[in-house]
Amino acid sequence: MTTSTTGQSQQARGAAAPIGVVGTGVMGASLARNLARNVDGSVAMFDLDQAKIDAVIAAHPGEDLVGYSDLPDFVAGLTSPRVILLMVPAGAPVDAVVASLTPLLDDGDIIIDGGNSHYPDTERRVAGCAADGIRFIGMGVSGGEQGALLGPAMMAGGDPSVWADISGLLEPIAARADDGQPCVALVGSGASGHFTKMVHNGIEYADLQLIAEAFAVLRAGGRSGREVGEIFAAWNAGEGRSYLLESAATVLAQDDPQTGGELIERVSDHAKGKGTGAWTVIAAAEQGVSVSVIAEALFARSTSSATAERAVWQGDAPLVGTVDLPVDVVEHGYLAARSIAYQQGLALLAVASEEFGWNVELSQVVRIWRAGCIIRARFLDALSKAYADNPEATSFLALEPFRTELLERLPSLRAVATAAMGACVPVPALSAALNHQAMLMTGSLPTALVQLLRDFFGSHTYERTDAPGHFHIVWEGDRSELRS
Amino acid sequence: MTTSTTGQSQQARGAAAPIGVVGTGVMGASLARNLARNVDGSVAMFDLDQAKIDAVIAAHPGEDLVGYSDLPDFVAGLTSPRVILLMVPAGAPVDAVVASLTPLLDDGDIIIDGGNSHYPDTERRVAGCAADGIRFIGMGVSGGEQGALLGPAMMAGGDPSVWADISGLLEPIAARADDGQPCVALVGSGASGHFTKMVHNGIEYADLQLIAEAFAVLRAGGRSGREVGEIFAAWNAGEGRSYLLESAATVLAQDDPQTGGELIERVSDHAKGKGTGAWTVIAAAEQGVSVSVIAEALFARSTSSATAERAVWQGDAPLVGTVDLPVDVVEHGYLAARSIAYQQGLALLAVASEEFGWNVELSQVVRIWRAGCIIRARFLDALSKAYADNPEATSFLALEPFRTELLERLPSLRAVATAAMGACVPVPALSAALNHQAMLMTGSLPTALVQLLRDFFGSHTYERTDAPGHFHIVWEGDRSELRS
Repeated sequence: MTTSTTGQSQQARGAAAPIGVVGTGVMGASLARNLARNVDGSVAMFDLDQAKIDAVIAAHPGEDLVGYSDLPDFVAGLTSPRVILLMVPAGAPVDAVVASLTPLLDDGDIIIDGGNSHYPDTERRVAGCAADGIRFIGMGVSGGEQGALLGPAMMAGGDPSVWADISGLLEPIAARADDGQPCVALVGSGASGHFTKMVHNGIEYADLQLIAEAFAVLRAGGRSGREVGEIFAAWNAGEGRSYLLESAATVLAQDDPQTGGELIERVSDHAKGKGTGAWTVIAAAEQGVSVSVIAEALFARSTSSATAERAVWQGDAPLVGTVDLPVDVVEHGYLAARSIAYQQGLALLAVASEEFGWNVELSQVVRIWRAGCIIRARFLDALSKAYADNPEATSFLALEPFRTELLERLPSLRAVATAAMGACVPVPALSAALNHQAMLMTGSLPTALVQLLRDFFGSHTYERTDAPGHFHIVWEGDRSELRS
Repeated sequence: MTTSTTGQSQQARGAAAPIGVVGTGVMGASLARNLARNVDGSVAMFDLDQAKIDAVIAAHPGEDLVGYSDLPDFVAGLTSPRVILLMVPAGAPVDAVVASLTPLLDDGDIIIDGGNSHYPDTERRVAGCAADGIRFIGMGVSGGEQGALLGPAMMAGGDPSVWADISGLLEPIAARADDGQPCVALVGSGASGHFTKMVHNGIEYADLQLIAEAFAVLRAGGRSGREVGEIFAAWNAGEGRSYLLESAATVLAQDDPQTGGELIERVSDHAKGKGTGAWTVIAAAEQGVSVSVIAEALFARSTSSATAERAVWQGDAPLVGTVDLPVDVVEHGYLAARSIAYQQGLALLAVASEEFGWNVELSQVVRIWRAGCIIRARFLDALSKAYADNPEATSFLALEPFRTELLERLPSLRAVATAAMGACVPVPALSAALNHQAMLMTGSLPTALVQLLRDFFGSHTYERTDAPGHFHIVWEGDRSELRS
């Protein structure tokens, strides 16, 4: 193993690193260390601030990291085609680094943006870099600091030709599923990697809210937080197994370091977010795809933080009733809603892929969500296989075994949602999931009345069930007369 | 009254028109005719296509319209400060017309964009025109063709100084509330007018969906469409009175011209939209304000049109059960949900006004929604007064008489939502309204668990209920070990 040194002494060695990392923050340093342990050759790191690089290298002696604070030196230290991984804050910093790098790179060199960039920015950068002969890859990285160091899930998107040049670098550092497959892929072209990560986070919002609602329902059955945590641990030992269920079991077992009681009792209910949930809802509104469970999860956080509006109602709060349901009914209701939330997210991804021409393979997406990322869950293994066998499936919930499972669990979801709402326990995400599936299963929806009203007041025309074409009624009466 | 003529012969008359209208489409022509009947002097009309202007003028002899196909002549025909109303398609056409007009205008002249422009475009145009000394007003116009001709509701936003120059033109053509007040105002600065119109349309989405769900619930009680229409007519005769309820009663009474049966039975349930519902949801996601009822209405339209996904479930549709509720329970549940949808929309407007510094007065907004627009409803009269007395109200639902009404109606909403969901009748908007209000009234929400989980897997820290500041637990166990 080469002794770690800083850039100056390395320059003499010439191009030696198969990959360079720009950015020495927590995620950048962790990924660089993960790479250094797993790839042939050293890993080049760049930061304008030499002291930051020196600090990272000094903290990890024996890891093959080579630091640069001079960008041309950094680029010169990379083997061809150059592969440069950006781990800098999303937004203007990415554009600034790309602008600085472009004149130093050759045709066919590769820039990978591993930050949480918004997909329209990535779509723009892919096109801009392509005009300069550079292959720009937007790559979502999930797993946090620990994941970055020990095995993240990575969702890359861009020019299919890059995979041969980067798979050998990324596969060794990725999380591995139970079958040993690395959780990294080029899921499609263009900005599909960052879009996939955004949808991942949207599903994370939904699952967190569904778990919180299951918690509220179980609490309304007279249980302590710790008891609910034990129930979640039991669910996690079964077919519902997931990182978030396991995590919920863990945090509900946590004592408060300050009072000694259950920590959950002392935690503020004002839930914050960092934007990707909102991005998912925005993308869905733009694409005309329902992500109602994700939207309710997003808005539940908004409402939780609406301090002033909540304050005016505290005096009038109705008593929360008891919700007395068997635990397995709550479990099956939760699992049904969770699967509907995943389906909504994947449907959005499929529509966006079609809209933007990304050729996303959902089986690949689900395959790399099986380990390393926040929404990893046992059922994704079967789901990945189901998609591989049915790449054109309209809805995975219509494939076996998911279809039968969902049909068996829907009565439980119905029981949980109605019992909770009847007892004044808010369950916006569980309700949204139930109503969404009920709409899909209803032969004739009352939105027919919406269509007819739009023809009435806006002359938008209406369509018929028994004939093609657009129709319009010349409505009787002067409807402009009404003044409320 | 001056005989209508085309531009050529008018040039000699010099500046005579107090307002000019660009665009001779249905809305532009209707507003021009409304203006011609109500303002002193003639109304100038501009279109590049002289034939289109000639057609409008020829179709309406005796109305004081003066046509121009030459833009400098059109501008020269206006009195100072010039007031020019754009009724052209939203988007690039507005920018094109503004660019053409700018060199021809003087400091202080006024451009009013009366189209359905997206508010960020308006915000940009307000600033751009201000740099050129021109006062740009974004104005939402509601009421359709009939409204434009006979009395629309108009929501203007922009530089407060313009009101003295345009109120004399707009007030005479606006719809009038029962108390005689014209339904037009400068609701605030910047793009607040177009934002207000967007929120109006978002509330319209919500109310249409709520009416459709009430229809579905009443149908599930064994009633025909016509019988439900009669029930809506009865509701419209009471405190719930609104244009949309009256319209629903009318369209449900309509026979099918082709089969002679009830028309609603033959209407496709694929509901379309034109974008403003999506814009509202997007704005709410960006601003961190819950508009869950509007979002469910938007997504219900998306799902209704998801033909392929609906098709895979038709074989498995559960039997829709009977919903046997007293009609007044459904009425009160619907009215509770409707008021929650209005509150969500107005909360979004208030937050946006704060964010963008628009100084929107909600009492003015509600005042001008009382007539002419699609969401006009009797309760807006009392609401306008309540806001005028309580301009800083956090939520109008917390003001009397709305608070007492809502608390009385919530048990009905709870009964409707749970009965419908229990019977497999989808009620996404009614449920969202109930859950939203339940969240506001709940002292301790389970989003505390979301916060704790975010600290667990993302080190995002958590806040406490018993102490200020941000806290972090050093969680035990290596959480990176879990592989689902």
